[in-house]
Amino acid sequence: MKLWLFGLYGIVATTAVAGDRAVKKGITDTTGLVSSLPVFKDLERYSPLNFDQFGGHEIRALDRNLYSELFSHWEENQHFDYRILKELEEDLKDIKAKKGTALNCGSGVLEELKPVSTLEDEGLSLEQIVERIEKDILEFKDDETVAVNVASTEPVIPYDQEVHGSLEGFERAIKENRKDRISASMIYAYVSLKNGIPYGNFTPSAGSGIPALKELAEKNGVPHAGNDGKTGETLVKTTLAPMFAYRNLKVLGWMGYNILGDLDGKVLSHKQNKESKVVSKDKVVSKILGYEPYTITEINYFPSLQDNKTAFDFIHYQGFLGTKMKFYFTWDAVDAIVAAPLVLDIARFLNFAKKKGVKGVVKELAFFFKSPMDTDEYNTHKQFETLVNWYRSLK
Amino acid sequence: MKLWLFGLYGIVATTAVAGDRAVKKGITDTTGLVSSLPVFKDLERYSPLNFDQFGGHEIRALDRNLYSELFSHWEENQHFDYRILKELEEDLKDIKAKKGTALNCGSGVLEELKPVSTLEDEGLSLEQIVERIEKDILEFKDDETVAVNVASTEPVIPYDQEVHGSLEGFERAIKENRKDRISASMIYAYVSLKNGIPYGNFTPSAGSGIPALKELAEKNGVPHAGNDGKTGETLVKTTLAPMFAYRNLKVLGWMGYNILGDLDGKVLSHKQNKESKVVSKDKVVSKILGYEPYTITEINYFPSLQDNKTAFDFIHYQGFLGTKMKFYFTWDAVDAIVAAPLVLDIARFLNFAKKKGVKGVVKELAFFFKSPMDTDEYNTHKQFETLVNWYRSLK
Amino acid sequence: MKLWLFGLYGIVATTAVAGDRAVKKGITDTTGLVSSLPVFKDLERYSPLNFDQFGGHEIRALDRNLYSELFSHWEENQHFDYRILKELEEDLKDIKAKKGTALNCGSGVLEELKPVSTLEDEGLSLEQIVERIEKDILEFKDDETVAVNVASTEPVIPYDQEVHGSLEGFERAIKENRKDRISASMIYAYVSLKNGIPYGNFTPSAGSGIPALKELAEKNGVPHAGNDGKTGETLVKTTLAPMFAYRNLKVLGWMGYNILGDLDGKVLSHKQNKESKVVSKDKVVSKILGYEPYTITEINYFPSLQDNKTAFDFIHYQGFLGTKMKFYFTWDAVDAIVAAPLVLDIARFLNFAKKKGVKGVVKELAFFFKSPMDTDEYNTHKQFETLVNWYRSLK
Amino acid sequence: MKLWLFGLYGIVATTAVAGDRAVKKGITDTTGLVSSLPVFKDLERYSPLNFDQFGGHEIRALDRNLYSELFSHWEENQHFDYRILKELEEDLKDIKAKKGTALNCGSGVLEELKPVSTLEDEGLSLEQIVERIEKDILEFKDDETVAVNVASTEPVIPYDQEVHGSLEGFERAIKENRKDRISASMIYAYVSLKNGIPYGNFTPSAGSGIPALKELAEKNGVPHAGNDGKTGETLVKTTLAPMFAYRNLKVLGWMGYNILGDLDGKVLSHKQNKESKVVSKDKVVSKILGYEPYTITEINYFPSLQDNKTAFDFIHYQGFLGTKMKFYFTWDAVDAIVAAPLVLDIARFLNFAKKKGVKGVVKELAFFFKSPMDTDEYNTHKQFETLVNWYRSLK
Ligand SMILES: NC(=O)c1ccc[n+]([C@@H]2O[C@H](COP(=O)([O-])OP(=O)(O)OC[C@H]3O[C@@H](n4cnc5c(N)ncnc54)[C@H](O)[C@@H]3O)[C@@H](O)[C@H]2O)c1
Ligand SMILES: NC(=O)c1ccc[n+]([C@@H]2O[C@H](COP(=O)([O-])OP(=O)(O)OC[C@H]3O[C@@H](n4cnc5c(N)ncnc54)[C@H](O)[C@@H]3O)[C@@H](O)[C@H]2O)c1
Ligand SMILES: NC(=O)c1ccc[n+]([C@@H]2O[C@H](COP(=O)([O-])OP(=O)(O)OC[C@H]3O[C@@H](n4cnc5c(N)ncnc54)[C@H](O)[C@@H]3O)[C@@H](O)[C@H]2O)c1
Ligand SMILES: NC(=O)c1ccc[n+]([C@@H]2O[C@H](COP(=O)([O-])OP(=O)(O)OC[C@H]3O[C@@H](n4cnc5c(N)ncnc54)[C@H](O)[C@@H]3O)[C@@H](O)[C@H]2O)c1
Ligand code: NA
Ligand code: NA
Repeated sequence: MKLWLFGLYGIVATTAVAGDRAVKKGITDTTGLVSSLPVFKDLERYSPLNFDQFGGHEIRALDRNLYSELFSHWEENQHFDYRILKELEEDLKDIKAKKGTALNCGSGVLEELKPVSTLEDEGLSLEQIVERIEKDILEFKDDETVAVNVASTEPVIPYDQEVHGSLEGFERAIKENRKDRISASMIYAYVSLKNGIPYGNFTPSAGSGIPALKELAEKNGVPHAGNDGKTGETLVKTTLAPMFAYRNLKVLGWMGYNILGDLDGKVLSHKQNKESKVVSKDKVVSKILGYEPYTITEINYFPSLQDNKTAFDFIHYQGFLGTKMKFYFTWDAVDAIVAAPLVLDIARFLNFAKKKGVKGVVKELAFFFKSPMDTDEYNTHKQFETLVNWYRSLK
Repeated sequence: MKLWLFGLYGIVATTAVAGDRAVKKGITDTTGLVSSLPVFKDLERYSPLNFDQFGGHEIRALDRNLYSELFSHWEENQHFDYRILKELEEDLKDIKAKKGTALNCGSGVLEELKPVSTLEDEGLSLEQIVERIEKDILEFKDDETVAVNVASTEPVIPYDQEVHGSLEGFERAIKENRKDRISASMIYAYVSLKNGIPYGNFTPSAGSGIPALKELAEKNGVPHAGNDGKTGETLVKTTLAPMFAYRNLKVLGWMGYNILGDLDGKVLSHKQNKESKVVSKDKVVSKILGYEPYTITEINYFPSLQDNKTAFDFIHYQGFLGTKMKFYFTWDAVDAIVAAPLVLDIARFLNFAKKKGVKGVVKELAFFFKSPMDTDEYNTHKQFETLVNWYRSLK
Repeated sequence: MKLWLFGLYGIVATTAVAGDRAVKKGITDTTGLVSSLPVFKDLERYSPLNFDQFGGHEIRALDRNLYSELFSHWEENQHFDYRILKELEEDLKDIKAKKGTALNCGSGVLEELKPVSTLEDEGLSLEQIVERIEKDILEFKDDETVAVNVASTEPVIPYDQEVHGSLEGFERAIKENRKDRISASMIYAYVSLKNGIPYGNFTPSAGSGIPALKELAEKNGVPHAGNDGKTGETLVKTTLAPMFAYRNLKVLGWMGYNILGDLDGKVLSHKQNKESKVVSKDKVVSKILGYEPYTITEINYFPSLQDNKTAFDFIHYQGFLGTKMKFYFTWDAVDAIVAAPLVLDIARFLNFAKKKGVKGVVKELAFFFKSPMDTDEYNTHKQFETLVNWYRSLK
Repeated sequence: MKLWLFGLYGIVATTAVAGDRAVKKGITDTTGLVSSLPVFKDLERYSPLNFDQFGGHEIRALDRNLYSELFSHWEENQHFDYRILKELEEDLKDIKAKKGTALNCGSGVLEELKPVSTLEDEGLSLEQIVERIEKDILEFKDDETVAVNVASTEPVIPYDQEVHGSLEGFERAIKENRKDRISASMIYAYVSLKNGIPYGNFTPSAGSGIPALKELAEKNGVPHAGNDGKTGETLVKTTLAPMFAYRNLKVLGWMGYNILGDLDGKVLSHKQNKESKVVSKDKVVSKILGYEPYTITEINYFPSLQDNKTAFDFIHYQGFLGTKMKFYFTWDAVDAIVAAPLVLDIARFLNFAKKKGVKGVVKELAFFFKSPMDTDEYNTHKQFETLVNWYRSLK
């Protein structure tokens, strides 16, 4: 099984690859990997944990390699034991990214990540960009290849029925070089699905979520899933909010205030790029409760934290006899560490799905996402049950 | 439907009664009542929310009434809107407790609650105590009466196979006046079950949990449930711990530090009386995770908080690549407010169970308890599903 | 001694008056009053705690009285024991506000507080407004009258050298009816200082802080002080930040996130009205540390909290060998309760200052303010020492 | 200037030495060092930061060296950047501890640190132990040598007027081999002071605090200071408690709950060894407030945290009109990192004191200690002012 990552040199991608290799070498265990829970034991037969090969697209540091980029992230974050890092150099230094596209990726990406180098910089048309992306992937892929988007979050692209509403319209727009309507994540998803490669969207970017690409997935019989990895504060929210519901406690307000540094934090400090993220995080509480309490959902840049995302949540709720009470939580985790294993999990389950003939949106993977496609199930407990049942019913 | 409460003048009992009456008068809503969730709508037909009558046993303030005692608690805690309180005087001032027993209730009860007045003070034998308790209850009860124990927490009584192991042994011990082996909560549970009254144990005291009384319940075809209302920190623990399990995150340590004032806090500040409580709270995490992380579970007296229980939890866990991360929560609630509605819920579901012919331990009520009898299901989410399914299957 | 309050029906004002009367009646003690600390014992001789009379300006609820307004605030907040409230009706129901001005008070005030009724609504010119304000105050004042501004926060008025730079320019602008340049708080401060009444500014509004009014205070020999009562998160910040400085620990970032409901919260939810507040809160850390760490200072509206201001602070700092560490605090207080006694304190110290011949800005009162005028001393500890020393040297 | 450390292989000691060397090499800066603040600039002339030599006593790992022990601590804690660590091997690998004594160090030390190797194990009498300790130190010392105790915390030794009350009694007890009355820290302090070496006690152990040794210090004209480095929760307490005092807010209760792992945590998990620590931490609040609020002060072992001390504090206080409010803080720091620079600071100031002819207890160093000797000043702010003034008056 092979894994192609859009955003290959990001901290999530490099950590996912490093983790896979460290498990393979036996220098770390499978802690953090959902797909390695006893309940999914047989998955190993369909989608063995250790991937055969890694590749991906990038728009940054293209003259470097995965190890050097992992090392840079590590120097800022020291996000795992240096003794593990040291042992991985040989395994990772030959993994190199291909040049990608940053179409409609917003100022967050273009300014904060510079110097950036993209296919469009070479003067290519949309059609040519698609061809180049396709070429890279075709060279890499085998029958068990999955692609996951872990590139920086794009701004929200206004929905355009003509372009996004049908596969035919989408392909026409590519031909007509409608660069204003199509973003990098759509191109990546398009190429993947077109070539029968299951696609996971770990970001809140559009990706495969537009009708045109859902149509393509159905047509080609490819499974896909997204959006936006549910790793931190939202994971806790969707685990805890049900408690208030079960107990008939009325949530009056829920404040969630997130801070982080790092590239991701920098990109999200751009209003435009932040938008899709905040929407994604905000709606979960009301979806679970069935009514709309007052909510605050903010993400802010806090440079010294680097990838150490910290979230402050405050829940004000009303109990019996109208009495108001309080609940506070603080999430203090390393974003890449909670995210990376899920990237591997998603890839493994998508490959399993493909083998089992599942096509289109795999809504049973909702457990992994903040904004799961095609389902209204946000309760983490239920999502986990759904995942287990789905897996059991297929294997 | 009628409700008999052991510990009638406690803050939980008085608040439960006040709440029931306030809902009846339409001056508060059903927030906090699980049994009033839409999913249990038809319960109203079997066990209508507003009880016909309240009564109970006490060992304190026997010359007073439920309103005066509610008022005392309110003066310390102002635990709900004074405008509600004012309106309840007429409804509550004629509810008066009967004199109970404090056998083996420990120094926490005898010293902190004094002056205490009990049946044993009158020089009665065990058998005579049982008779008196029975007489009070028989005078009160009708076909739809439920009893719930909300008296102060007793010390752990060492298990004695001869006395606790069989109904026959238990009844012999009563006859033989074995006062060292039988505690107040056992007597209350015995009388209830003997007389066909469903019994709920909202405390960690022994209650109906000994084999002798389980036998009695089976024999008499009476449903019962317990132990120890799951209202605060433990509710959160059992909601949150599954998240770590689902995500294959390894909990290294879980600290739970609880402080509260009030009578309950005072009683629990006695080592002996605290014991059963701490055990009850401590084991839930390992039951859910399937392994035993390092845990700290403490309850301490903090007088100025009164009934405003505050808990500080810290979870240290390990993620992918061995990285340690942190999660903190603070629970700041009013104990009586989160507890009182559950007392009504438990009573309603037990009455429903009786009508449906359920007998013995109703393990499907685990959702309401820290140490549910006869089940290993501690995950709040699953307990809720179990409750709903059980209810649906019977109604 | 008499006290005139701008914003008389606000929660701070009504609580200050209620507290003063409750102390007088002996139904509460002097907890919270700095001026009642043993070290200021003799102040009682100059500025006795219990004021002879209260009055003030308002733009809201002018047909009501101080008790009814206190009661409204109390119903939302239950911010002190209802038994105290009940006893104050007689003392407070005859205190009635005069109609004030809301010139340049922004949408926060005009929209959130409506229906609003102001002198400018009557079609009065600036000069006529000043006259009316002056008339009200002159009718009330005696030789020992102090005025304190506790009205809603105004937007920042752009500095205009011509109007704000000199007394002569300011008075000319009044004559010329330059309504765009002069705000309500300036008018109130002007009238106070012009008539020899010491003036305290408990808000971040301009008040007496413009050069024109400082000149007036000097000229008339009147003491004044401000700005913005230091009651909550900023109090803690300025108490704690010195610790990092003394220990040579390097603050990398300081996040302060405040939420509150209530009128004040509503007004501050207007961008414009919030501006001066945030500036006022933000700069204190760098003033104390001597360098500028990354800071986040936000205030947001959270309706269900009412006046129960809650603040979440996170301090990221660097210690020996470059290691990063963390400190978190949560402030959970009732804004009016921490603010009200300071209003009385400020009035007492200003009256004392006047008696001792102090004129102009009393920078030794910096202890009470977030943005103390004419001083760079933000360290709470030093400010307290300064206050004590100043008091001792004068008395 | 040379530094002798009792407990040389502990994490505080090794980190102090590592830090000193890293500053010398220019690979870290002086962050965390109080003595390097601009206000103490000239101290460099008297007690230059970079020490000429380090030595000390140990009872553990005597066949190893300071680098290997630092490395062990680092492997558990990764408490500073590994790039700094790597560079220090050469500088630290030749620093080796001498065998010390563990007389009356309690089960915490003897069990948790085993295998332990001490002079008493060799069968030496008290007098012989003193001689051996003295020999080691005399071989090392020069005119500018200071000794600091950073060994594990000893149990409280019951005060015995005969032995501890006078120098003569103490020396007699040594001769008489009264091993039950004299603890390791007293022996170390005795030898230091006897030989004119300034002595700092960074632990709550008895050290130089008994009358006998105070007499010795006076007699020999040696400065000494202690007890118990004020590094974490207590530092915050003593910075924050004054705020409540200044504002006349009444502290109702103060909970401080500390958890840590590591050797220090293990030793403190022994009741006996914990005792002095808890006393030391507990009294500071009442000393500052002038009354005794309800307090909880606990330290508990939490293995996975290692040296990452985490403290949870909750302050319940009463404000104006009797209203109760809350304040919470969480301290999340690395104990060795906050402690190590203070060890260097204390040594530098003691050396300065000696040069300036100061003898006996230097109470002006109270700033560095939880239980400063011979002073009642616990307010961190005042202690800092005292330190600065003392330094200025002498230099
Ligand atoms: N870490 C988490 O917990 C988490 C959770 C949910 C979602 N996500 C999302 O995952 C994504 C990656 O996060 P990260 O922390 O690794 O961020 P990162 O900034 O470290 O990595 C993103 C990488 O993508 C590259 N990139 C940007 N635009 C690209 C493009 N158009 N094509 C190819 N490469 C591109 C960047 O150069 C960078 O190397 C973000 O969108 C983030 O919002 C992360
Ligand atoms: N409040 C919660 O959230 C919660 C949660 C779980 C369990 N509980 C348990 O519920 C019980 C009641 O709590 P509370 O806060 O109301 O305490 P409380 O002290 O206010 O009430 C207990 C009452 O029981 C009475 N009592 C004591 N021993 C008795 C006896 N042997 N017979 C009859 N009456 C007796 C006392 O006089 C008192 O009035 C406690 O055991 C507590 O541990 C409470
Ligand atoms: N509560 C605190 O801890 C605290 C601390 C620092 C500063 N402050 C400031 O104190 C002020 C009062 O706070 P509050 O909580 O009492 O708010 P509030 O909204 O309850 O009271 C303000 C009152 O001022 C009145 N008002 C508004 N504009 C006026 C005007 N131009 N003339 C006369 N009256 C006017 C309003 O009608 C209202 O009654 C605010 O500016 C607030 O920012 C409060
Ligand atoms: N780290 C802090 O923030 C802090 C603050 C205040 C006080 N302290 C105190 O400083 C001391 C050291 O703390 P640490 O974290 O370095 O602990 P540690 O356990 O890492 O180090 C203590 C060292 O002392 C050695 N030791 C024990 N008894 C000895 C004896 N009698 N003679 C010689 N050596 C002996 C041990 O072998 C160990 O190497 C402890 O007493 C601790 O309570 C630490
Ligand atoms: Na709170
Ligand atoms: Na933390």
